[in-house]
Amino acid sequence: MDCIFCDIINGNATGEILYEDERIISFLDIRPVNYGHTLVIPKAHYENFLLVPEEELAKLINITQKISSAIIKSLKPDGFNVITNNGAAAGQSIYHFHFHIIPRYKEDAFNFKLNLKSYDQGKMKEFATKIRSAILL
Amino acid sequence: MDCIFCDIINGNATGEILYEDERIISFLDIRPVNYGHTLVIPKAHYENFLLVPEEELAKLINITQKISSAIIKSLKPDGFNVITNNGAAAGQSIYHFHFHIIPRYKEDAFNFKLNLKSYDQGKMKEFATKIRSAILL
Repeated sequence: MDCIFCDIINGNATGEILYEDERIISFLDIRPVNYGHTLVIPKAHYENFLLVPEEELAKLINITQKISSAIIKSLKPDGFNVITNNGAAAGQSIYHFHFHIIPRYKEDAFNFKLNLKSYDQGKMKEFATKIRSAILL
Repeated sequence: MDCIFCDIINGNATGEILYEDERIISFLDIRPVNYGHTLVIPKAHYENFLLVPEEELAKLINITQKISSAIIKSLKPDGFNVITNNGAAAGQSIYHFHFHIIPRYKEDAFNFKLNLKSYDQGKMKEFATKIRSAILL
């Protein structure tokens, strides 16, 4: 399997590693939106967010929070995003699950191009009903 | 405190609720990027991602995963993003922590406007050193 993140984990590719434990590793994104743009990933190879086991996902978000705090403290950005993209249509390019932590600045060039929609009458309930009926706990 | 999400939780504002338990609630974003755009939030009011207690954050991401699965199953988008925006510079508009789940389509109009940077020689290590020294576990 050809996976650049697995290569970094296995030491077959270099990365600027910020944090590492038995199951999680965090390193700088080599092509950052802003400097300090960081990835947090499980060492096990899961293709996307939906496939990460519950307990591992919990650990990942907790470490992501701690590293976000470190980014805020050390780089003092004006804000930050935590993002996971799943599927090519959502901007995923590496098929090994990862959280992005993106430090943001008031004057930065990274814009969400938002064309927000509105729901026509009855449409919102229709969507809610569909989703609700598919929730499995 | 004037918070639209607290109003929804307290029943003082209506929302198209998808899921609710003692500590978490999920409802449709009234101004969606795409139809089915969903928010998952703690009932307790925390201003942003960094302030959510560890255990509560773990529960939130686990529920967010389950609702993401439901969105994929019911709406069959081509992909999805899970996003949290923190600070006005990052696009936060409601100061009650929330995860966005955004269903995405190949032909949708929602683009991340990316102007990816590169690190000059030595710069990457410099940023990594700063962040590493601020990580508190």
